[in-house]
Amino acid sequence: MKNVVTFGELMLKLSPPGYGKIVQSRQFNVEYSGAEANVAVSLSNFGMPTRFVTAVPAHELGDAAVNALRQFGVDTSFIIRNDNRLGVYFAEKGASQRPSKVIYDRSNSAIACAKPNEFNWDAIFDDVEWFHFTGITPALSDTLASICLEACRVAKAKGITISCDLNYRKKLWNRERANEVMTELCRYVDVCFANESDARDIFGIIAPEIDVEKGLIDKVSYATVAKQLAKRFDFQAVCITLRESITASDNNWSAIMYENGVTCFSKKYPIHIVDRIGGGDSFAAGIIYGRLNHFEAQYTLDFAVAASCLKHTIEGDFNLVTAEEVEDLLNSNGTGRIQR
Amino acid sequence: MKNVVTFGELMLKLSPPGYGKIVQSRQFNVEYSGAEANVAVSLSNFGMPTRFVTAVPAHELGDAAVNALRQFGVDTSFIIRNDNRLGVYFAEKGASQRPSKVIYDRSNSAIACAKPNEFNWDAIFDDVEWFHFTGITPALSDTLASICLEACRVAKAKGITISCDLNYRKKLWNRERANEVMTELCRYVDVCFANESDARDIFGIIAPEIDVEKGLIDKVSYATVAKQLAKRFDFQAVCITLRESITASDNNWSAIMYENGVTCFSKKYPIHIVDRIGGGDSFAAGIIYGRLNHFEAQYTLDFAVAASCLKHTIEGDFNLVTAEEVEDLLNSNGTGRIQR
Amino acid sequence: MKNVVTFGELMLKLSPPGYGKIVQSRQFNVEYSGAEANVAVSLSNFGMPTRFVTAVPAHELGDAAVNALRQFGVDTSFIIRNDNRLGVYFAEKGASQRPSKVIYDRSNSAIACAKPNEFNWDAIFDDVEWFHFTGITPALSDTLASICLEACRVAKAKGITISCDLNYRKKLWNRERANEVMTELCRYVDVCFANESDARDIFGIIAPEIDVEKGLIDKVSYATVAKQLAKRFDFQAVCITLRESITASDNNWSAIMYENGVTCFSKKYPIHIVDRIGGGDSFAAGIIYGRLNHFEAQYTLDFAVAASCLKHTIEGDFNLVTAEEVEDLLNSNGTGRIQR
Amino acid sequence: MKNVVTFGELMLKLSPPGYGKIVQSRQFNVEYSGAEANVAVSLSNFGMPTRFVTAVPAHELGDAAVNALRQFGVDTSFIIRNDNRLGVYFAEKGASQRPSKVIYDRSNSAIACAKPNEFNWDAIFDDVEWFHFTGITPALSDTLASICLEACRVAKAKGITISCDLNYRKKLWNRERANEVMTELCRYVDVCFANESDARDIFGIIAPEIDVEKGLIDKVSYATVAKQLAKRFDFQAVCITLRESITASDNNWSAIMYENGVTCFSKKYPIHIVDRIGGGDSFAAGIIYGRLNHFEAQYTLDFAVAASCLKHTIEGDFNLVTAEEVEDLLNSNGTGRIQR
Amino acid sequence: MKNVVTFGELMLKLSPPGYGKIVQSRQFNVEYSGAEANVAVSLSNFGMPTRFVTAVPAHELGDAAVNALRQFGVDTSFIIRNDNRLGVYFAEKGASQRPSKVIYDRSNSAIACAKPNEFNWDAIFDDVEWFHFTGITPALSDTLASICLEACRVAKAKGITISCDLNYRKKLWNRERANEVMTELCRYVDVCFANESDARDIFGIIAPEIDVEKGLIDKVSYATVAKQLAKRFDFQAVCITLRESITASDNNWSAIMYENGVTCFSKKYPIHIVDRIGGGDSFAAGIIYGRLNHFEAQYTLDFAVAASCLKHTIEGDFNLVTAEEVEDLLNSNGTGRIQR
Amino acid sequence: MKNVVTFGELMLKLSPPGYGKIVQSRQFNVEYSGAEANVAVSLSNFGMPTRFVTAVPAHELGDAAVNALRQFGVDTSFIIRNDNRLGVYFAEKGASQRPSKVIYDRSNSAIACAKPNEFNWDAIFDDVEWFHFTGITPALSDTLASICLEACRVAKAKGITISCDLNYRKKLWNRERANEVMTELCRYVDVCFANESDARDIFGIIAPEIDVEKGLIDKVSYATVAKQLAKRFDFQAVCITLRESITASDNNWSAIMYENGVTCFSKKYPIHIVDRIGGGDSFAAGIIYGRLNHFEAQYTLDFAVAASCLKHTIEGDFNLVTAEEVEDLLNSNGTGRIQR
Repeated sequence: MKNVVTFGELMLKLSPPGYGKIVQSRQFNVEYSGAEANVAVSLSNFGMPTRFVTAVPAHELGDAAVNALRQFGVDTSFIIRNDNRLGVYFAEKGASQRPSKVIYDRSNSAIACAKPNEFNWDAIFDDVEWFHFTGITPALSDTLASICLEACRVAKAKGITISCDLNYRKKLWNRERANEVMTELCRYVDVCFANESDARDIFGIIAPEIDVEKGLIDKVSYATVAKQLAKRFDFQAVCITLRESITASDNNWSAIMYENGVTCFSKKYPIHIVDRIGGGDSFAAGIIYGRLNHFEAQYTLDFAVAASCLKHTIEGDFNLVTAEEVEDLLNSNGTGRIQR
Repeated sequence: MKNVVTFGELMLKLSPPGYGKIVQSRQFNVEYSGAEANVAVSLSNFGMPTRFVTAVPAHELGDAAVNALRQFGVDTSFIIRNDNRLGVYFAEKGASQRPSKVIYDRSNSAIACAKPNEFNWDAIFDDVEWFHFTGITPALSDTLASICLEACRVAKAKGITISCDLNYRKKLWNRERANEVMTELCRYVDVCFANESDARDIFGIIAPEIDVEKGLIDKVSYATVAKQLAKRFDFQAVCITLRESITASDNNWSAIMYENGVTCFSKKYPIHIVDRIGGGDSFAAGIIYGRLNHFEAQYTLDFAVAASCLKHTIEGDFNLVTAEEVEDLLNSNGTGRIQR
Repeated sequence: MKNVVTFGELMLKLSPPGYGKIVQSRQFNVEYSGAEANVAVSLSNFGMPTRFVTAVPAHELGDAAVNALRQFGVDTSFIIRNDNRLGVYFAEKGASQRPSKVIYDRSNSAIACAKPNEFNWDAIFDDVEWFHFTGITPALSDTLASICLEACRVAKAKGITISCDLNYRKKLWNRERANEVMTELCRYVDVCFANESDARDIFGIIAPEIDVEKGLIDKVSYATVAKQLAKRFDFQAVCITLRESITASDNNWSAIMYENGVTCFSKKYPIHIVDRIGGGDSFAAGIIYGRLNHFEAQYTLDFAVAASCLKHTIEGDFNLVTAEEVEDLLNSNGTGRIQR
Repeated sequence: MKNVVTFGELMLKLSPPGYGKIVQSRQFNVEYSGAEANVAVSLSNFGMPTRFVTAVPAHELGDAAVNALRQFGVDTSFIIRNDNRLGVYFAEKGASQRPSKVIYDRSNSAIACAKPNEFNWDAIFDDVEWFHFTGITPALSDTLASICLEACRVAKAKGITISCDLNYRKKLWNRERANEVMTELCRYVDVCFANESDARDIFGIIAPEIDVEKGLIDKVSYATVAKQLAKRFDFQAVCITLRESITASDNNWSAIMYENGVTCFSKKYPIHIVDRIGGGDSFAAGIIYGRLNHFEAQYTLDFAVAASCLKHTIEGDFNLVTAEEVEDLLNSNGTGRIQR
Repeated sequence: MKNVVTFGELMLKLSPPGYGKIVQSRQFNVEYSGAEANVAVSLSNFGMPTRFVTAVPAHELGDAAVNALRQFGVDTSFIIRNDNRLGVYFAEKGASQRPSKVIYDRSNSAIACAKPNEFNWDAIFDDVEWFHFTGITPALSDTLASICLEACRVAKAKGITISCDLNYRKKLWNRERANEVMTELCRYVDVCFANESDARDIFGIIAPEIDVEKGLIDKVSYATVAKQLAKRFDFQAVCITLRESITASDNNWSAIMYENGVTCFSKKYPIHIVDRIGGGDSFAAGIIYGRLNHFEAQYTLDFAVAASCLKHTIEGDFNLVTAEEVEDLLNSNGTGRIQR
Repeated sequence: MKNVVTFGELMLKLSPPGYGKIVQSRQFNVEYSGAEANVAVSLSNFGMPTRFVTAVPAHELGDAAVNALRQFGVDTSFIIRNDNRLGVYFAEKGASQRPSKVIYDRSNSAIACAKPNEFNWDAIFDDVEWFHFTGITPALSDTLASICLEACRVAKAKGITISCDLNYRKKLWNRERANEVMTELCRYVDVCFANESDARDIFGIIAPEIDVEKGLIDKVSYATVAKQLAKRFDFQAVCITLRESITASDNNWSAIMYENGVTCFSKKYPIHIVDRIGGGDSFAAGIIYGRLNHFEAQYTLDFAVAASCLKHTIEGDFNLVTAEEVEDLLNSNGTGRIQR
């Protein structure tokens, strides 16, 4: 099977153990992650050959970041090493009525400072079938926006399927700039991922009668969002995750996929959350896995939702389940009976 | 803004990590806390200048106890150091049908052995607006009951608002003695805090048709309790927290405040508990904060309930949230969506 | 009071801390446990004199395994030490839709390699009232099946009550062999324990209209299973635990006991799970405790279900609660109010 | 082999992990130990039947304390449970030029409050060969001093060998009182243990030309101390440990034993310390083991010094080595080559 | 006593537990420290009123950093909060032949981006007796160099004693720029601290016949360095720490102080290291403490060397010892005998 | 650069944290290692392309084992997955006079049960320059001895350099069988590694006047051992590590290399040990690295000794240093000064 390439930032994630707040923690758990890296790791855990492209510093933190991906079999040979810093993010896990909080410290990172000529897209895309990135990558710097565009052009020229998770981050850029850049990039995109608010924030596409903050989700309304997105950019498929937040501890999780005029709706999982960061990335990985394996649309969606449901039960940003474990959930009823 | 003074015991709290039982634990988490100290820390985290008065031993455990408050900006300069021991309490966290358990080892502590002339109330109450203590302090020793009375007299003479959380502890004194002492102290109190059972245990004031042990709470019944309390002691306000225990893991949490013949009722939060110890103290801090800032009665109550709801999601006895985080909960709907 | 003897394997249990998966864990929690050892420890915690019989290696791991039981007062003086290995099992705790997983590495263990003449059943059963084993022990090796039979014969001859938890483990033997061996052993058994699927897997006795995998449990149907079991083997009593898996995090837990033509049904506890391994063993201990103390049938069942409900709130395979704590739950309503 | 009985306080020991100071520690390691308990555990690890007598509270901390001994096979059936507290001691481990520090919080403990009639010495000393206590026990309260005396009387009447480790603790009593009580008790003692300063502090017996604080030790001078002690109380044997403190991290460790006019001198071990608390207790256990097994004097001393040398390499107050491990050290040269 | 002010960066320090390397660590210990903050904390632990001036971000990491100082009683009310990041440094602890490694990630920090008008030196220096900073602060940005100069001018005008630790950091600036800036600042400095190489790196002042890298230190040679420094800048006193590195685990530590033509030489401590970071800062605190208390020169130096010797035995950058503990070391001989 | 292949067992290593003994540990550190895997990881950390060949179980423990190597860039694509168990070894770290202890539980492991036809040596040795194994691999089973022989034959036919570390393990086979098998295998070996005792135990070649157990090492005597080994098997080079055990905490470490009639002697490092397991493997990796890079003999030896010296300062069996860090040690003097 050919490779999947993902491209984006790889950060040091620091988080208080358990439900600790930063002001009370004397130790931080250490992870190395990022939206696109998470997708690569999940696909690799499903058995797909994956390649992750980024830039990290030449010192030990860069080594540790590379090792963190390499342990799961991701090909890290195209990762650039330079003298800039590793972006950091701090994540405080919420519980019940207390929301999770994220503090980003990612300016001037190795990837944000990367130069176009450092990436040999022709080589990177050799023997590649799918290219995935998110809206975070072009938001990191104007140069990265250009690099993303260049990557898309090369990928398109090579007939590689391109997917993008809109992933709007208001602290990285404003809606106008996001709209401008993402509009250009989306012309190359085949499969678009979004959560409940991305389409609204970037493209002003609004689900009728929805108030995301209230935690209420109407899957039918979102089908119209998917349809509008697909129409505007001629996407092959649009996938939207639907997170109903009851509290920080309990969410309902489902998704829809719109393709060729048809919307598939997934089952809705009531999840008692272990760690929800990386949920969207694990969903994207599930969809890419399904499409690369030519699963039917409904099964692809079901697989992706089951995969990302399981991610919510795992500590850390990476989805550590195998394809077999996802299938076990699909074939069972999610009652979690012990497996001896 | 003028200072808030709280007065009481500061203990070493030892607790098995996670849901461990004492008999299986090889490590204990270490905190330094106490009902009145918890109120001071919460107020300080809200930005109020606070002063905590107690006695702790002159050795390293006393230092550690002082530092634990000082880190949150509490003024510890009036804490007395003597040669007695630091009170200890052991807390085993419950889960589901298993209740939390507390073992007290607080006899002969530095504060229980403190002498009246060691506290210069005139200096302690300099530039002070509010004085708070709980029914635990006078229960520690007869001398402390006298000291509390003296503190109330001085505070009253200086026009300081006095609040007291009844906090009946059956292992420290019996109902008769509690009734006797608290009756005398309550004459000085302006704002009274109680939980569902304190008024019954100390003053024999019973909520009609309530069985606290069954976990059923009727907020209207409790309004009559508040009214009776207010009437008997001419309290400015009476605030009662209402905890519906579904299990040790899940509680419903709300409160009422009676003032000038009117009872405000708060929203009820269904809480998936991280740590419930200190819940009542964080509520008192919220009410004091609201009253000192001249919030309206309903908003004061809502703030206090939201603040104490958040306390239940935080490890340790201290409420580590800022006023802004409480307001975020008031302005949201408690669905705990991640904050990036 | 006379001794209870239990006989089976004592393993090293290794488990990732928290909800970690094996592939992400750099530390494993260490326990020493086994179905029959768990029963002995729980009974000892209830104050019963217990004696555990097994074989462990002569080296430090065997010492540690013995100490793990000895700390709870179990008499370990009949444990054999030899040169074989200690069986190991790895347990990954599930959450929400992700099931717990167990990997066994118990072949060629000290107990599996034990020889008949190493056990002096006459001495072991001196001053003994009750003998308990599970279907795991005879499944470990053909020799152990013979040893179990021998133990049953000696026990029966001494008028000792014999109980057996069917505990079918499909990785240890197949249904045919299990049926053959257990049929022979059950002739000696007075009290039979089973979970929802054991009777089906070993003896082909099926609860009408039940689909265990779906998590739906009909207690009345199970009464017919109990009745059939009792009839086939002339059991004094048959006890069946009923686990309704909602998710790996939330289970409903109840049980039935059939005796003399009458089925008792217990209350059903909705449990937010801390650790469910050992739940069945703690139930068996509760029943044995009740019967040895001549409790009434309904109270015996209620006690056993409450005891095993509490086990689900405790980390580790051992049920660390005292009889008093179980009675507290029986006398309360399971709302888990803090005990100060 | 007959039992060894030891009698004294069993405390909760709390210590910062690693080289942490109390003021910086958020977790304490939890142990349950005491001088006489340490001797019992070490003897039990050598394979001797031992019985430990004390009083602990009836609650969970008492349970945990009992379990801590029971795990190593010590007979705890004579331990009294009452309603007083468990003594606590806090230990900060030193390093290099920073000394270890101990804070005691043991007043009003279960054992200090024990009454004479709670101990049935006749039953306790049934089937017993050796009775050991230390100078700490009679220092805990006047009542305990009487109880010790009573125990000695009963033991002596039964022909039991009695040993006592002088173990002077200046925070528990002054030299005068210690001299008075210990003089009376020593009349019953057969084997006396002391460290470099005990004989001086309690009995005013001074080693010529020694300055213990300077860390210089002259073993020959100490022979004269041993001789004087033996003479004054007609001891069968006097054993003195000699600790040369280079720093808190490195000590030289040796001992002498005087018996029948002859002094044996041990080898001196240069120890890089893991944990030195319990060093003296492990030495006493070694001597008792040697004498009970009728080893020759020199070998008894060598065994005890090797055993206690190993204790210094083990975390916690208990000496966890077997007699075989001690013999391995005696038969090797202490170069610590790996054992595969 | 009047206040001591220190001014500099406060960073998040992240370090692998124990001797872990970054590439193998899944948790980092969390501290908040910096050269000048360390001095403030140590002085505060000696009982001096101290005030620390810096800028930190307005978010939770800034809160945590402030709390870290506040717990030890440092006055943090002059700390500025802005929207920039918190500098970070990663420290891997060395052992034996493996050196400790530090990775700095401090560009664009809150303090490096601070503006001159944000600091009200007149208010900061109110009621102040001593001002301390290090060569790291002016190296952080050109603006900070100006701010340091302004601070020195105001301090000098108020008659405040000024001390500076040269602390050359080659990754922050080059020798030329350091020479230029430090030359100007040193005109205001009264007491100068340096280690073996600072004078060489910044001012080109070389100790004759010394090779620092070889770990050989000739204290007499360094007296000439101190003399030259004092002469060039008319320093009141020059203090130089002398570290003889045997390995990363064992150092010899001593210092000299030159004042009024006389050089004092300290005792040399052979230290088995727990954590050496912050050693120089704790020395500076010791000297400042001695001079503020008008100790004699030799005792001041001895105190400072003993204080910093103890720092090497403590985990973390802060020197957690009290003045009494330093005096205990001075009055003993460093043999580290346990203190009960 | 061409690949290095190593072949052997990959085990789960379980070890008590710190200096804990197994009987006192409630957690074990988890590693996955083995002599040949350690060599592969070290070479990969030096930047060499490496390939590790083994068999591990198909379940999660096998995944974790593979990931542990993959994180450091080792090519794991030739690792076989089967249904057998993963070998386990338990390691208790010694200190001072207490030796480290290893308990092996490796029978019937995936690799011990591997079949000859599962390894395609032709493919494995494609594009390979060096093949390394140790005397442990053929000792695991007779089949593995044959497989080793087959691997050597194929490697030799392809002109690949073969190295073998004799690594005699007396618990796996006896001297006679080791002699027989190793004699046959050594005919294919070009570079032979041994420690002080291997040559004696397997081939009866004795260093004159040496008593390894006494910790005394005479490097000249060992030159004669190397010479005899080289002569008997016509080895290209023989490398012998010399460990002088002072205690378990302090060792002197050096080595010799004999080649073409010349013996090189290395510097001797006095090491304060963090973790000594894997020391010999890291030495072998250093020699292989030097030879593959055509370093001079003396520099190759110096590099290997410095590399393995550093290994002793690192927790875990893997040598985590880069070639640059080794060179830094070679270029410095091992005084471990901090690197900022």
